[in-house]
Amino acid sequence: MAENAPPVRFELLHVCTQSGARLGRVHTPHGSFDTPAFMPVGTQGTVKGMSPAELEEMGAGIILSNTYHLWMRPGTEVLEALGGLHRFMSWNHPILTDSGGFQVFSLSDLRHITEEGVSFRSHIDGSKQMLSPERSMEVQNILGSDIAMAFDECIPYPADHAYAKRSLERTTRWLERCLETHRRPGDQALFGIVQGGMHEDLRAQSAREVMAFDTPGIAIGGLSVGEPAKEMYRILEHTVPLLPTAKPRYLMGVGSPDYLIEGSVRGIDMFDCVLPTRIGRNGTVLTSKGKVIIRDAIYAKDPHPLDDECTCYACRTFSRAYIRHLVKANELLALRLASYHNLWFLLRLMEDVRKAISENRLLDFRDEYLERTGYHHRKVKP
Amino acid sequence: MAENAPPVRFELLHVCTQSGARLGRVHTPHGSFDTPAFMPVGTQGTVKGMSPAELEEMGAGIILSNTYHLWMRPGTEVLEALGGLHRFMSWNHPILTDSGGFQVFSLSDLRHITEEGVSFRSHIDGSKQMLSPERSMEVQNILGSDIAMAFDECIPYPADHAYAKRSLERTTRWLERCLETHRRPGDQALFGIVQGGMHEDLRAQSAREVMAFDTPGIAIGGLSVGEPAKEMYRILEHTVPLLPTAKPRYLMGVGSPDYLIEGSVRGIDMFDCVLPTRIGRNGTVLTSKGKVIIRDAIYAKDPHPLDDECTCYACRTFSRAYIRHLVKANELLALRLASYHNLWFLLRLMEDVRKAISENRLLDFRDEYLERTGYHHRKVKP
Repeated sequence: MAENAPPVRFELLHVCTQSGARLGRVHTPHGSFDTPAFMPVGTQGTVKGMSPAELEEMGAGIILSNTYHLWMRPGTEVLEALGGLHRFMSWNHPILTDSGGFQVFSLSDLRHITEEGVSFRSHIDGSKQMLSPERSMEVQNILGSDIAMAFDECIPYPADHAYAKRSLERTTRWLERCLETHRRPGDQALFGIVQGGMHEDLRAQSAREVMAFDTPGIAIGGLSVGEPAKEMYRILEHTVPLLPTAKPRYLMGVGSPDYLIEGSVRGIDMFDCVLPTRIGRNGTVLTSKGKVIIRDAIYAKDPHPLDDECTCYACRTFSRAYIRHLVKANELLALRLASYHNLWFLLRLMEDVRKAISENRLLDFRDEYLERTGYHHRKVKP
Repeated sequence: MAENAPPVRFELLHVCTQSGARLGRVHTPHGSFDTPAFMPVGTQGTVKGMSPAELEEMGAGIILSNTYHLWMRPGTEVLEALGGLHRFMSWNHPILTDSGGFQVFSLSDLRHITEEGVSFRSHIDGSKQMLSPERSMEVQNILGSDIAMAFDECIPYPADHAYAKRSLERTTRWLERCLETHRRPGDQALFGIVQGGMHEDLRAQSAREVMAFDTPGIAIGGLSVGEPAKEMYRILEHTVPLLPTAKPRYLMGVGSPDYLIEGSVRGIDMFDCVLPTRIGRNGTVLTSKGKVIIRDAIYAKDPHPLDDECTCYACRTFSRAYIRHLVKANELLALRLASYHNLWFLLRLMEDVRKAISENRLLDFRDEYLERTGYHHRKVKP
């Protein structure tokens, strides 16, 4: 790689003539992954219940891990001693880390936002801490993710215009500080984040400000925070066209089947969400006929797999009756199988999305898929 | 198999000239396994945290499952509808089921023993239940294990001679009732159980009475119930020589490294214990240098595997520092990795034991192994 080449590069392979969705490939220091991509979430340096071998087996091209959690535990000293996050968790493929900001807002107590950053109490030991652009970058530099995220504020929904504007402008200033303090620009990409709430003029302002820094990728934050689907789609349709074609676009915290397809239709390249593992641990599985709550008594003697159309290990091997028994008996294998299946399901969906893009039929695929699976309660025409 | 051939057959391959330990192979309707064998325990129809694929990968030749737990949940109706335990849990290899007696004594409330059986309250819903030889066989027949165990009483330690004698004689009568009610003698072996506490004359009486029924295998119960190791070894040295050479001998509920070796030395062919998965879930691992409590702060930055000499997936892939982090963070992967490693460790130990038997050096192996590993605090010369 040339001296000044960005550590992460987006290769645009094809644009779906039917939808405008993009087929691409993101190249990182730890290998490449195809887009649109779903990133399984490994909050504490592990995708809950899954081994790295299983993540490879299911075709996860990149995973996300949370800076806040790893900073609080095991801490940067351990992660530095063990050679960074890839080696620590034995995942020799791309990793994206968030900035920690979202967790500080959602998990910690007594948070207080200033221009400097956010002061809070640790959710683990109650200690007083400060997260700032500089601190977030310091931690992410030690983690050594392929893609680091800028420290931003993800404002709640709804947020009025005045607050959203003040916040996005601070987020821009924080991005500048992140870039100034970033110590590994050669092997770790830093993505800026477009904020601005549900206000189109503010999204445009934020996109303009973020793009001025020419980061190797751009994220859209502050969506899927409680707003109706049509609001999310409106903001995406307004914001995505403002972004550069040559860089990957990451829609943060989004991962339900319909959102993954609708986001792809609107030009998004990367997604992440805890949904597949979180609902899996509660015994809910995604299937080609909609969600199945496997705990339900109706499945007590059901000899069929979780999903008749699925070829994952759980579906090739076990009945709904057995997995229901494991759920009822609080067995670890239940959590494993449901999480594995759900991740497999979403990763296969993304394969189907990429195939449909390459065949210029993503809108047809969307309509057929949402109709067939029942994941269409939030369907909105673009 | 001939009409009247027993469903389970023991093939004696070699007797160690140094120790008298036996190398053998047990043939069952679901395949064969080598002895001495350690059986991982799958209490609720799953070896906690492990998939059947992983059990195959680690070389488990046979697993044990608990009749009491499966009877209480999911119940015989479900197990019958799903075609028995092998199909239910997707394990197409040998399974041994216990009688449920031990769990009734240890888990349930208000148990009351009569000649008829044991009345108790379910540990799940508090319902009144009765477990008897007939009921145990009915459940085990539905489970369809390759080896069913006779319903017996495992008396506490210490137990006086009079009680131990009354109990073993009732256990013999219960064995007779089990055999009378057994509906699948053609494809499910029923093993009798020798009881008698720590009293040598009673062990001899029980062995004589059990042997009279000519079951395809014989278990030794009521050991590892709190007695000193030398007491267990005394009873084994007294009892095993009374048993027929042509049948497998199963020492129930025993599975620490030293007991597995010392039991093999004394002519035992089969063992089971929850130890590897139970201590694994608590973050304790068995290694070639003794037990490691991975939660200890000393391992916080330790880049070495759980066991430098181990070749299991966990040891090939992860550091102690990472696994300690997973344990501290209550991550599911911690339980998986520690359980997997511990089972692997004991299954490799049994391979080493079988190799040492075939090379007529099991006593040398024992002395060297217990000295090197530190699992020798209970070492007693036979």
